[in-house]
Amino acid sequence: MSDLPKRVEMIEVGPRDGLQIEPRVLSTDDKVRMVDVLADSGLRQIEVGSFVNPKAVPQMADTSELFNKLEKRPGIRYRALWLNPKGLERALANGRVDMDGKLTLTASETFVKRNTNRSIEETLAQMPVWIQTYRDAGIEADSLGVMAAFGCNFEGYIPEEKVIGLIARTMAIMEEHDCTLRHLSLADTMGWGSPSQMKSMVGKVRDKWPDLQIKLHLHDTRGCAVANAVAAMEMGVTEFDSAVGGLGGCPFAGHKGAAGNVCTEDLVFACGEMGIDTGIDLDALVEAARLTETLVGHELPGKVMKGGTLNRWKH
Amino acid sequence: MSDLPKRVEMIEVGPRDGLQIEPRVLSTDDKVRMVDVLADSGLRQIEVGSFVNPKAVPQMADTSELFNKLEKRPGIRYRALWLNPKGLERALANGRVDMDGKLTLTASETFVKRNTNRSIEETLAQMPVWIQTYRDAGIEADSLGVMAAFGCNFEGYIPEEKVIGLIARTMAIMEEHDCTLRHLSLADTMGWGSPSQMKSMVGKVRDKWPDLQIKLHLHDTRGCAVANAVAAMEMGVTEFDSAVGGLGGCPFAGHKGAAGNVCTEDLVFACGEMGIDTGIDLDALVEAARLTETLVGHELPGKVMKGGTLNRWKH
Repeated sequence: MSDLPKRVEMIEVGPRDGLQIEPRVLSTDDKVRMVDVLADSGLRQIEVGSFVNPKAVPQMADTSELFNKLEKRPGIRYRALWLNPKGLERALANGRVDMDGKLTLTASETFVKRNTNRSIEETLAQMPVWIQTYRDAGIEADSLGVMAAFGCNFEGYIPEEKVIGLIARTMAIMEEHDCTLRHLSLADTMGWGSPSQMKSMVGKVRDKWPDLQIKLHLHDTRGCAVANAVAAMEMGVTEFDSAVGGLGGCPFAGHKGAAGNVCTEDLVFACGEMGIDTGIDLDALVEAARLTETLVGHELPGKVMKGGTLNRWKH
Repeated sequence: MSDLPKRVEMIEVGPRDGLQIEPRVLSTDDKVRMVDVLADSGLRQIEVGSFVNPKAVPQMADTSELFNKLEKRPGIRYRALWLNPKGLERALANGRVDMDGKLTLTASETFVKRNTNRSIEETLAQMPVWIQTYRDAGIEADSLGVMAAFGCNFEGYIPEEKVIGLIARTMAIMEEHDCTLRHLSLADTMGWGSPSQMKSMVGKVRDKWPDLQIKLHLHDTRGCAVANAVAAMEMGVTEFDSAVGGLGGCPFAGHKGAAGNVCTEDLVFACGEMGIDTGIDLDALVEAARLTETLVGHELPGKVMKGGTLNRWKH
């Protein structure tokens, strides 16, 4: 297993991607508590909320207030999501968000139209505006997120060549505008990926662009998320989005299909057992998962929070 | 991914290892239904029940009656479990069980004493009796199951050398008694294993005994089960025990620690996406999982049964 990385960085997205689907809207104070216990565990990147339309996602309506209330700790990046220029404007206006210069694409035409009312071409055409908006705020655009990079419930499997092509076009646009793509996030938004797909896609991206830092955003829709992460680690991937407790699944039976993100503590457990350092205290993280379970008011799918850590057996 | 096998064999243990922990005792007719729909999906090995003390495991009290009622189909092995000579006697007496000549060991001294009231040495000393009992029934002892092969909640991590040593001693005893170990089942009974451990342990066993057919029995106690199976497949393992719906977890909050077996349909999904043939119709298997959920009367942890298969996207 010498091909595994020595260190993996977890980006906790529970307060954002996790909570946004939850029917119980948490108070800002409860969210502050949740973010604080997550920070206690040693997580150093936490996606705290998103600057989206509060009518569309009521759970995220208080993101700005949340950032104002958080006592930010040194060494921790408190991140946020925005999907349109208005959201970016609000994030910038808040002033306390640790900003990323990120561009976003979706590899599925149908999904991007449903989500943003724009085509893939229109999204690409908009990129120079984003780059300039970031630049005006003193931020270098340097990262790209590709949603539905492995498959889409509306379009089926996404060919790897399509994703590679979209990355290449984004790079060209960025170069034209004097910035460089350094960070790539591949999102398995609807949980289509398998370990083979992870290895194949990551392998192709790394062959083509060896200097690109790759992050994976995985969902456990079909039970492969931890296996997918391990497969990606074997290909050298060292950054993963994840959600405490496996948050992000929908508690209503009628919406069972909406599965959660890969569970932070389950992945941290797997890393620990494989000798990969995450800098996270697993017992503290389990406490964060338990608090989160209490806050959302229903059982979460995480396994380690039920099965227990193995820390008392370590020497 | 050329190191993956082309074909994987699933041994469904849901009706046995899965149901035995369920508080609702199913009627024999319901069990017949369950086994039949499992067989409908293309599974060719089903562990139907166990010949254990009915007072200790009331759910298994009707195993003999169940075998009598089953309409056995050609090409399917209807297997059972027994843990002591009396159980073996009952299985033989039934006459309809597809018998295996299997010996059983536990790699944890504490756990084997709790479970069987015997030490590891006493278990080894008993093996010649087992071999002779099988022989008297016309069965060749040819397989060994090692429980708690990766770790134990009472003893901690189990050293690989201990497991290797126990296999070697069993082999020597078998050879002394004119039989040969051909099938080895390594059980991660309490869900301690990680992908690295799977690779390391399987690698050592294969290096030492390349002809041994290895099966893994995995539990998802800490969320690694599918990842562990994939890691084992990468080391050439082609046989897995699994339980439909991820059955085997306990529905009572107070017993949350008792997690289920690796979920059959989730593992079959992963295999399918990786181009590995299992001979199983995933949609039919999901139907079996849904029926099982109805029979046990609570939600099962399987993911594909909620997230859906991707079969309609295949061509």
